[in-house]
Amino acid sequence: MNAPVLSLSRRLRKSPFEARSHHGAKATSVYNHVVLPTAYVSLEDDYWHLREHVQIWDVACQVQVEVKGRDALKLVEFLTPRDLSSMVPGQCVYAPLLDERAGIVNDPIILCMGSDHFWLSISDSDVLLWVKGLALGAGLDVTVSDPNVFPLSLQGPKSEALLDRLIDEPVGDIRFFRFIETQVAGIPLVVARTGWSGQGGFELYLNEPSEGERLWDTIAAAGADLNLRPGCPNLIDRIETGLLSHGNDMTLDNNPIEAGLDRFFKMGKSANYLGREALEKIAQDGPSQQMVKLVVSGEPLANPRVTYPMSVVGNAGTGCVTSMAYSPRLGHNVGLGYVPTGSAGVGNSVTIEVSGEHVSGQIADKGWQTTAQ
Amino acid sequence: MNAPVLSLSRRLRKSPFEARSHHGAKATSVYNHVVLPTAYVSLEDDYWHLREHVQIWDVACQVQVEVKGRDALKLVEFLTPRDLSSMVPGQCVYAPLLDERAGIVNDPIILCMGSDHFWLSISDSDVLLWVKGLALGAGLDVTVSDPNVFPLSLQGPKSEALLDRLIDEPVGDIRFFRFIETQVAGIPLVVARTGWSGQGGFELYLNEPSEGERLWDTIAAAGADLNLRPGCPNLIDRIETGLLSHGNDMTLDNNPIEAGLDRFFKMGKSANYLGREALEKIAQDGPSQQMVKLVVSGEPLANPRVTYPMSVVGNAGTGCVTSMAYSPRLGHNVGLGYVPTGSAGVGNSVTIEVSGEHVSGQIADKGWQTTAQ
Repeated sequence: MNAPVLSLSRRLRKSPFEARSHHGAKATSVYNHVVLPTAYVSLEDDYWHLREHVQIWDVACQVQVEVKGRDALKLVEFLTPRDLSSMVPGQCVYAPLLDERAGIVNDPIILCMGSDHFWLSISDSDVLLWVKGLALGAGLDVTVSDPNVFPLSLQGPKSEALLDRLIDEPVGDIRFFRFIETQVAGIPLVVARTGWSGQGGFELYLNEPSEGERLWDTIAAAGADLNLRPGCPNLIDRIETGLLSHGNDMTLDNNPIEAGLDRFFKMGKSANYLGREALEKIAQDGPSQQMVKLVVSGEPLANPRVTYPMSVVGNAGTGCVTSMAYSPRLGHNVGLGYVPTGSAGVGNSVTIEVSGEHVSGQIADKGWQTTAQ
Repeated sequence: MNAPVLSLSRRLRKSPFEARSHHGAKATSVYNHVVLPTAYVSLEDDYWHLREHVQIWDVACQVQVEVKGRDALKLVEFLTPRDLSSMVPGQCVYAPLLDERAGIVNDPIILCMGSDHFWLSISDSDVLLWVKGLALGAGLDVTVSDPNVFPLSLQGPKSEALLDRLIDEPVGDIRFFRFIETQVAGIPLVVARTGWSGQGGFELYLNEPSEGERLWDTIAAAGADLNLRPGCPNLIDRIETGLLSHGNDMTLDNNPIEAGLDRFFKMGKSANYLGREALEKIAQDGPSQQMVKLVVSGEPLANPRVTYPMSVVGNAGTGCVTSMAYSPRLGHNVGLGYVPTGSAGVGNSVTIEVSGEHVSGQIADKGWQTTAQ
């Protein structure tokens, strides 16, 4: 059947870049009530281009939640098991937000704008309502708001060369997961060395939507000889890079330990946080399942619309595949999914049920190898 | 430019009806992280059919938030200025949910499932996170969850005849905004006389997703000679009916008094609710703007992607158009929007700015008349 087109209304918030970014987009989705392009030339062609050149991504859908005021740090600390006590202005950290059962509400990058001022640069759920609800319920002295800030991302190996043409500051001075406040063509921006690809890059946070098209055009002109083109988060690249997608690879029903996000924090931070008791119990007992990387030979498989059931050969219990894409570079499918704890060994064989068929695969290490190195 | 197709992944929750409802859908949107068909034959053709026959709508996107436990009523009361103290099991009420500034968070239908058990059948924002956040922050004794219930809607003048063929109970006994628990072909359902059209109908709440296609097929077979066909909330019909769309006609930046939703509640309920102080101040001072109905002759106008600026001739201040569609029945555009308080008189002329052009219209009464009756 033909895929239907996406109809627009005011309910889907307008990106300041959409007059540019929607041009040439072959497919889109909706993310945080904002349209997100999902393919331009094709998933594979976009993938190769991203690895070789530089792309400009409209990620206005990566909405900001601003937390400001006397209790701002206390509230942001309360949201996550990651210790934020030593965060300094100009720093970004990736931090899963938990509910009372240690379920993952969202996995933003938190930007420290000042000692009592944070932005949460969120994945696809209404964190504004979550944080406002918690703050109001607990009577904290903070303002939680939507600051109308819209990110644009430059990703790919030539992104540094491109950014160097656009800002006065030495690009090399912007460290990984740090940001500066600067301007491009007189347009004030927050520029961070972050982004949802494995190819390096920057995110430019615009707070003046009326400048969106001029910013895009300025960047496009500066990048023309770098083979810059519009792009978007690429399914193949992000799976290869091991970047988890909230809603795909983890939901409110998953905890950060089984999802492997505990590598981003140490248990036992001193500040109080929601879900501590539940998380400590999971840490003590061990999670029931574990996120693994999967290699599946043969025909390209589609990204699952629902999870594909998966079992580990010779082991009890079932898990599931949460993301899958065919890597034209590696010559096989790469996937992410959960298997029962104790069966996650690299090289273990798995059987995946895809539309009633059984497909074989193996658990891989983070370099996508299926034999112990 | 060609409209891009919508790409699917697990991040967009699967409706149990989508194998049926996506077939023939020409356009879709995303609502509460679920795909919502927005047109089948065409907006106009769907409109006429809805007024004359009966349609089956996949509104799985109308997600439920379940509030259950000792403090359930206290919490649900806290969410809205509408008095819920006399609600009885089997009753539905439409109730705006407010934040601390009396901004509209969402406008669900609340279903009373039991004295300590409610479903909020929501519009497009993550009310689960909002209500969980408030409950956790305030330490209330409730469970707030997503019960995995998926509504299907039967709308149109023949919906009563159709439902009568499907359930054992007399359909006439289901009063407006009441529900019963029944079954269709052995599938347990909650059936309410509600729905987002002006043509009458029912909403069927399914809690067993694996039965979605069988339910759809059973209804389709029963309705074949009633000219039943798939449909969806229709922009023309819902504007004519005066049904406001959260995200389009009101957002967190609007209060229920200016949006005209205060007709659904009386000020001064005894239970405590969030935003009371702010709302009472607005009620006392009067809102700065008021929702009005608009008649605009001439060429069909598109539903605004962003609000169209609007001024009332002979009056100061500006307002905006929030929704617009061409009514083939009335022979003119019908719209909704805000004008400054004091300029909302029926028959007043307005000037609307649409893509740089000025278009004239008039404020209409609820029957779309522009002269005082």
